Amino acid sequence: MRVGVIGGGQLARMMVPPAVALGIELRVLAETEGSSAAIATTAVGDYTDAATVLAFARDVDVVTFDHEHVPQHVLAELVAAGVAVRPGPEALAVAQDKVHMRERLSALGAPVPDWGVIRDAAGLGDFLGAHAGAAVVKTPRGGYDGKGVRVVRDPAGADDWLAEGPLLVEELVGFRRELAQLVARSPSGEVVAWPLVETVQRDGVCAEVTAPAPDAGGLLAPARELAVAIAEGLGVTGVLAVELFETSEGGLLVNELAMRPHNTGHWSIDGAVTGQFEQHLRAVLDLPLGDPAPRQPWSVMVNVLGGPAGRTMPDVYPGALAAQPGVKFHSYAKASRPGRKVGHVTATGDDLVEVLATARAAAGFFRD
Amino acid sequence: MRVGVIGGGQLARMMVPPAVALGIELRVLAETEGSSAAIATTAVGDYTDAATVLAFARDVDVVTFDHEHVPQHVLAELVAAGVAVRPGPEALAVAQDKVHMRERLSALGAPVPDWGVIRDAAGLGDFLGAHAGAAVVKTPRGGYDGKGVRVVRDPAGADDWLAEGPLLVEELVGFRRELAQLVARSPSGEVVAWPLVETVQRDGVCAEVTAPAPDAGGLLAPARELAVAIAEGLGVTGVLAVELFETSEGGLLVNELAMRPHNTGHWSIDGAVTGQFEQHLRAVLDLPLGDPAPRQPWSVMVNVLGGPAGRTMPDVYPGALAAQPGVKFHSYAKASRPGRKVGHVTATGDDLVEVLATARAAAGFFRD
Repeated sequence: MRVGVIGGGQLARMMVPPAVALGIELRVLAETEGSSAAIATTAVGDYTDAATVLAFARDVDVVTFDHEHVPQHVLAELVAAGVAVRPGPEALAVAQDKVHMRERLSALGAPVPDWGVIRDAAGLGDFLGAHAGAAVVKTPRGGYDGKGVRVVRDPAGADDWLAEGPLLVEELVGFRRELAQLVARSPSGEVVAWPLVETVQRDGVCAEVTAPAPDAGGLLAPARELAVAIAEGLGVTGVLAVELFETSEGGLLVNELAMRPHNTGHWSIDGAVTGQFEQHLRAVLDLPLGDPAPRQPWSVMVNVLGGPAGRTMPDVYPGALAAQPGVKFHSYAKASRPGRKVGHVTATGDDLVEVLATARAAAGFFRD
Repeated sequence: MRVGVIGGGQLARMMVPPAVALGIELRVLAETEGSSAAIATTAVGDYTDAATVLAFARDVDVVTFDHEHVPQHVLAELVAAGVAVRPGPEALAVAQDKVHMRERLSALGAPVPDWGVIRDAAGLGDFLGAHAGAAVVKTPRGGYDGKGVRVVRDPAGADDWLAEGPLLVEELVGFRRELAQLVARSPSGEVVAWPLVETVQRDGVCAEVTAPAPDAGGLLAPARELAVAIAEGLGVTGVLAVELFETSEGGLLVNELAMRPHNTGHWSIDGAVTGQFEQHLRAVLDLPLGDPAPRQPWSVMVNVLGGPAGRTMPDVYPGALAAQPGVKFHSYAKASRPGRKVGHVTATGDDLVEVLATARAAAGFFRD
């Protein structure tokens, strides 16, 4: 069994351990030599070039992704050549364009913030007028980790982006907290759901995840049903991450979707019987899915953002590992750079207060 | 950080996942292309050739092993060239020669079966006469998985092997069961111990491991102390496996030693906070060691011996994974062959009877 992954980032990297365990051959098409996924890289090239991607895909059983940026024309050529592409082009299209995403989610009846498409400052002014003077504008394509997202309170506040084309505009949701519901779905239609998790974002970037989400009893089933309905409605195969707002009224609104393993699921590597990377491989190969149950009552994942200046995570291991013998440390083999996701740590245990403190302390070793 | 592993078997393969997680670069010197550890193989060559091994070792921080067969003259050249070799040549010498092992263990005061060295049938006859007419003869070098070990009851019963040189002879121990105590020791002297496990051997090959060993309360501390004393006494770095007999009288005798991750520790990959392969990497890099505590009350590992004829383990995944969603499956990417270790499965849980049944049922899918 051979899985081809387009993209050599940390998500491809984290598919390596479960692939090795299961005896699945992983091949990565990376953009550069020396990527995070270098150990499994069998080709280096441009994922927007159809010939490059077709050549890479020739000898694999299924193609999947480290990111959602492969152009539709390339995906179409893969499908035309008989390559199994999972998730498929239609599902990926939803993740690639935020306006399309809002349209499809609305059509599915999924709860979403009020939204619209604006073409100019007047349009933004109208939306602001109807939404208490505040809104979130998003570039339809290419945004991630808070990039391409801006809160505006002034009709002229998006003029620079509007010069490039229409924008998605959404109400500024007054939320209690952010949550994420991950599910995996196979081509045969099997779906499994991890428990709902709470996520803390800082500057638009995932900073911390607690699994399961504390005090979320009444939200667990609705969140699971919502994510399963979206996965089925959009025909997603592999892991689907549904980022959610818990509103001030205690309801759920869908914020974003990702059709691949997701930062909010990294806790599952160490915290669940079947981690998201193993599950993604099983799903895209149409193998039976594994048990997503937590192994421990609580797991907390803290991202290592930036990393120790001028050093790498392993340079700091002597202190960090000695202080936290029960924490699982993950380095993405990336150089430190302000704000960059260079790794994460996961603590697990019976007492949430202790687990949170442990994970934060462990991550603290990698800050300057 | 860069670790070089000599040997491309499944033990090298299973070092890959924790190396990827920790951001440690793993390089393997394999004997052949397409080995179990192919994904991390950076050199293919003969480990008995000093020039080959020296060239491989040039760019790594430490050299460690998939097996114990690297000749002492090669190890000596590595040390002379300033390479960190862990475990070191002196410790490995003990694992390489069973007579030397018995001598050293006896000198350390470790409990061992009665033993001697025989050079001819008369010597064997004398030993048989002194030990109720039964003995175990072992070739001092090169034995593994039951090879090079024979029970004899006739003074002529080892003539074929005696023609090749002296043999180790031991009393045939009347044991209740076999146990294994694994510890890891770093060059700084830190030592951690996993819980004592029970092992079931079939035809001299490890078939099944239960962690921790059931009903072993009174043996836990003595086994741990014994293994720690051996690790310290022999100056072992990395993982040390001490295979033990629990005698009919309830005592412990040391059967064999292995100075590397060991089949009896595979349960720890999924069943312990820190698995033996991660711990081995930490230890040989002289990083602080991780928590060896079990994650669940019980873990049972069952080897996949032989594998499904004409097929590989992944060929059988559709049935196996569907039936056992909570089991962790490990394939070594080897072709099936009668008796060959091609993979293992691990089940964990609260109820030993259930965990045993689950692990055995999962492994059963890979038999014809």
